[in-house]
Amino acid sequence: MVSADPRVKSVFDDIRSTRNSDFVNNLWRALANQPPLLERTWSSVKEVMIAPGTLDPLTKELIYIAVSTANGCSYCVHSHTAAARAKGLSGQQLAELLAIIGMAAETNALATALQIPIDTEFEVG
Amino acid sequence: MVSADPRVKSVFDDIRSTRNSDFVNNLWRALANQPPLLERTWSSVKEVMIAPGTLDPLTKELIYIAVSTANGCSYCVHSHTAAARAKGLSGQQLAELLAIIGMAAETNALATALQIPIDTEFEVG
Amino acid sequence: MVSADPRVKSVFDDIRSTRNSDFVNNLWRALANQPPLLERTWSSVKEVMIAPGTLDPLTKELIYIAVSTANGCSYCVHSHTAAARAKGLSGQQLAELLAIIGMAAETNALATALQIPIDTEFEVG
Amino acid sequence: MVSADPRVKSVFDDIRSTRNSDFVNNLWRALANQPPLLERTWSSVKEVMIAPGTLDPLTKELIYIAVSTANGCSYCVHSHTAAARAKGLSGQQLAELLAIIGMAAETNALATALQIPIDTEFEVG
Amino acid sequence: MVSADPRVKSVFDDIRSTRNSDFVNNLWRALANQPPLLERTWSSVKEVMIAPGTLDPLTKELIYIAVSTANGCSYCVHSHTAAARAKGLSGQQLAELLAIIGMAAETNALATALQIPIDTEFEVG
Amino acid sequence: MVSADPRVKSVFDDIRSTRNSDFVNNLWRALANQPPLLERTWSSVKEVMIAPGTLDPLTKELIYIAVSTANGCSYCVHSHTAAARAKGLSGQQLAELLAIIGMAAETNALATALQIPIDTEFEVG
Repeated sequence: MVSADPRVKSVFDDIRSTRNSDFVNNLWRALANQPPLLERTWSSVKEVMIAPGTLDPLTKELIYIAVSTANGCSYCVHSHTAAARAKGLSGQQLAELLAIIGMAAETNALATALQIPIDTEFEVG
Repeated sequence: MVSADPRVKSVFDDIRSTRNSDFVNNLWRALANQPPLLERTWSSVKEVMIAPGTLDPLTKELIYIAVSTANGCSYCVHSHTAAARAKGLSGQQLAELLAIIGMAAETNALATALQIPIDTEFEVG
Repeated sequence: MVSADPRVKSVFDDIRSTRNSDFVNNLWRALANQPPLLERTWSSVKEVMIAPGTLDPLTKELIYIAVSTANGCSYCVHSHTAAARAKGLSGQQLAELLAIIGMAAETNALATALQIPIDTEFEVG
Repeated sequence: MVSADPRVKSVFDDIRSTRNSDFVNNLWRALANQPPLLERTWSSVKEVMIAPGTLDPLTKELIYIAVSTANGCSYCVHSHTAAARAKGLSGQQLAELLAIIGMAAETNALATALQIPIDTEFEVG
Repeated sequence: MVSADPRVKSVFDDIRSTRNSDFVNNLWRALANQPPLLERTWSSVKEVMIAPGTLDPLTKELIYIAVSTANGCSYCVHSHTAAARAKGLSGQQLAELLAIIGMAAETNALATALQIPIDTEFEVG
Repeated sequence: MVSADPRVKSVFDDIRSTRNSDFVNNLWRALANQPPLLERTWSSVKEVMIAPGTLDPLTKELIYIAVSTANGCSYCVHSHTAAARAKGLSGQQLAELLAIIGMAAETNALATALQIPIDTEFEVG
């Protein structure tokens, strides 16, 4: 049911070769109906998540899971937890990640409920 | 205006000695009106963010900033960005963090809008 | 299993005649257990979404889908995407809607993370 | 305080010529510290919001405002309301937009609270 | 700067007499530019928050504050905390409310991150 | 599949004796893989939701449901609605709760969209 648009084949081929796997997950298959959006989204993901940088690949996945949880995106939590496992996520690291996500959600709510003014010490000079 | 409750003094003393600084930021001052909540929240933050674990302190702050951004907590974004800077956050690391937070928000929205079914490959066996 | 309350029958009849269809979707059936809430909600939806105004019916549905996606309401994304299709949503329009929703989510996150001050040029005089 | 990176000048020049205005708003100035993110974000915004498509420019802004409101991004609500005004937003259109955003938020909450199952009629065949 | 529309005067008069106070807060003043939205919103608030029911007025305000916090609406947190104080909110009740809001935010995040399946015991028969 | 860690058995025993029921719901079972997080979370829930205070147990559940709905946590809405029913939630109370949650979501969105300044009357002196 995937589009015959040549841009779709090109992106799918790049996903497969970049990941060194035949598997193309449902997000990309769903985006295949919108070739320009598929191209732009994959290009951005590749630049942000895969190109070498100062944050290691597993740390990037932890951040992605954290954002996806806070945004309530079940699909993204699943897909990036799978990606993190493939990059070596340990049970202990997952436990710490969960604790931080939960703790942050709690203090976020408290700070919002209490309408706390920002300390001048936190302003960048 | 801080409470005279001895639990408040005890927590504030612990914040100061744990952080090796006299500065106690507004979140804790606001919670001083609720001593049991202050005690429990600080105890949890200390356990989650400060006790040694498998994630390094800067990585923990990056995750905290990511969650706080997704939850729209301006105070928390400020306080944890300051904490991250104190732990050595570089401009390049911040740029990568921002890119991941933005990218995740975008694909979270796309996955939600497209109502994408979870790939069976992502289910843990 | 729908309530025998006459207010429910009256609202359901109005839904059917307004939409010129026998189908009453699950949201209204669930609200049938709360007749005053059912009446008030349907009355508001009818006034906001169906009464003629300056925005055309399809544009209204696009906005509804956008809000529902950002709020993570899977049911509402489904029901209003169906409504938009019934009002002529094209594949190209859907692609553009998705791109805007994703792009907005990304820049929303960046603006929040960067705590950007509002330009004085944007303030209404 | 804007970066001397040539990529920043290039993007700023393109923002100015695309919008036919000397004004560069704070979002782009803040992103100037992250040139690759600045380039990618502007390139996406230009493709999504400015390139001609099937949705007219004002409709695109209405959708952007709706998403930004649901995501609680004050900066983005301000900047895109200003953009919508510049594209001819009338008071009546704004009133209808607000009514839809509010109504959608209400039914989103009700559908989530009631955990309403998706009607089979809404599934795409 | 308030509209001369007679519907605005009528709603403002009703707000004043219902609350037995001359003060009309900014939300209603802002909505005065959209008379039908003003009328419908006030009518709903009056029915939901002020008409006698099974939940007492202070409990209703606690729920309103909780939702407003979770939705990140600073204005609404302020206005409904003021309303709760006027209805007798004690410091101890506020402390318990804050603790529940924070705790719920934390377990909400954990349940989302862990993608926990709903126990069959929770399904209504 | 539950962990053999003695901390898990201890928490599960406490859940069962506190609730006077053999049933341990899935949230706690999922947390069993993270014993320190399980211990801390249960300890907090017990302190916040079960220890006697100024808010009665049913009111606490209403607030928990309200937050969980706004945060889009389907699991938590289900589990705390079940808990509220066990504590005597009536159909009429549920109807009023739903109306408040929906109404708050709507005015939250309006206040955010309109960027309403906080009345000085709401500031605590």
